[in-house]
Amino acid sequence: MKILVVGANGQIGKHLVRFIQESEHEAKAMIRNQEQASYFKELGAETVIVDLERSIEDIAKAAEGVDAIVFTAGSGPHTGKDKTILVDLDGAIKTIEAAKVASVKRFIMISSFDTRREAILNAPSSFKPYVAAKHYADEWLKSTDLDYTVIHPGALTNEKGTGKVNAATEVERGEVPREDIASVIFNSLVNNATIGKEFQVVSGNTSIKEALKSI
Amino acid sequence: MKILVVGANGQIGKHLVRFIQESEHEAKAMIRNQEQASYFKELGAETVIVDLERSIEDIAKAAEGVDAIVFTAGSGPHTGKDKTILVDLDGAIKTIEAAKVASVKRFIMISSFDTRREAILNAPSSFKPYVAAKHYADEWLKSTDLDYTVIHPGALTNEKGTGKVNAATEVERGEVPREDIASVIFNSLVNNATIGKEFQVVSGNTSIKEALKSI
Repeated sequence: MKILVVGANGQIGKHLVRFIQESEHEAKAMIRNQEQASYFKELGAETVIVDLERSIEDIAKAAEGVDAIVFTAGSGPHTGKDKTILVDLDGAIKTIEAAKVASVKRFIMISSFDTRREAILNAPSSFKPYVAAKHYADEWLKSTDLDYTVIHPGALTNEKGTGKVNAATEVERGEVPREDIASVIFNSLVNNATIGKEFQVVSGNTSIKEALKSI
Repeated sequence: MKILVVGANGQIGKHLVRFIQESEHEAKAMIRNQEQASYFKELGAETVIVDLERSIEDIAKAAEGVDAIVFTAGSGPHTGKDKTILVDLDGAIKTIEAAKVASVKRFIMISSFDTRREAILNAPSSFKPYVAAKHYADEWLKSTDLDYTVIHPGALTNEKGTGKVNAATEVERGEVPREDIASVIFNSLVNNATIGKEFQVVSGNTSIKEALKSI
């Protein structure tokens, strides 16, 4: 399986490309500029340079011939709100549309912990725009007939992954290492039971493979 | 006909409520706070206080019993991008969802001149987030089974209205007084031939009533 990782140069993306390259599968890292390429070249991964602010057609070209797309690009809640619209909302939706154009059925979206409508209302006011952007991107994906999985990670940390999580439709808010989220993504890619599902993930006591079985 | 005007306290909204009150119809002005009420009370219009950052249910309650909703709220392209997400995108979509909840079929959206996908790409970079927000709000509305009209005005001015416009699916970019846009909205409300249509409007040589006949 060949997997286009959109946002490969992010911290989750880097772990994910490594996991993919260590497996029987291949990653294609979508990055914004040539300077980001060396990490991926060292892992033997293909790279493709496309800025998410470009067109659906440009993204679709990058997605040609892959079997799955992972969207893990993210301006995060603390960047300028222009990027919240142009990356988290528009970049995500263009990638979903590009998947359709390139006939890539499998799509994994890395969302925020809670993107339900009530979460926009209840978020602290500086966080609301980010939650709204992620909400609409998730809604857009779920309204397609793509084979989607929406992953809602808890508060991301740079701790080393433990390989153990708590994953379910709703879990108690908590932290989770980015490396474990990358592993959750990888294990979702190779587990078709996660298709059509969305779930929250925080650190826990269950191995990632086991946790995904009960989703 | 009773018409909920969302964003009544904006300049287009104020003209529109006046036109409605001067006709056989009635306006219900949705405003953000009590201080904005006096203008509408003088016109004999009902007011309802709901901030667009509140829930769908709150907006739906304001829409109960009306026959049509006009969304003319807008942070505009020059406010903070947080408001672009929370008003132009989320406020608009919540109002659309509120129309469904309140079983109000007729919905008129005041959009921006060009909100097609290419327009996001081609807009100057400070304008892109606004175009993207309006794009998704328009797309959301057009995907519903509401009786929608999407009006795309040219560059808005505070000149006195002339009553004459150029309106079509695509017209050459140009200016148009806010008062004329209010009149286009009013005339669309009473002309069911505008249902399911979207069109651009700038100043021109055709009376508004005539212009809407050929949409």
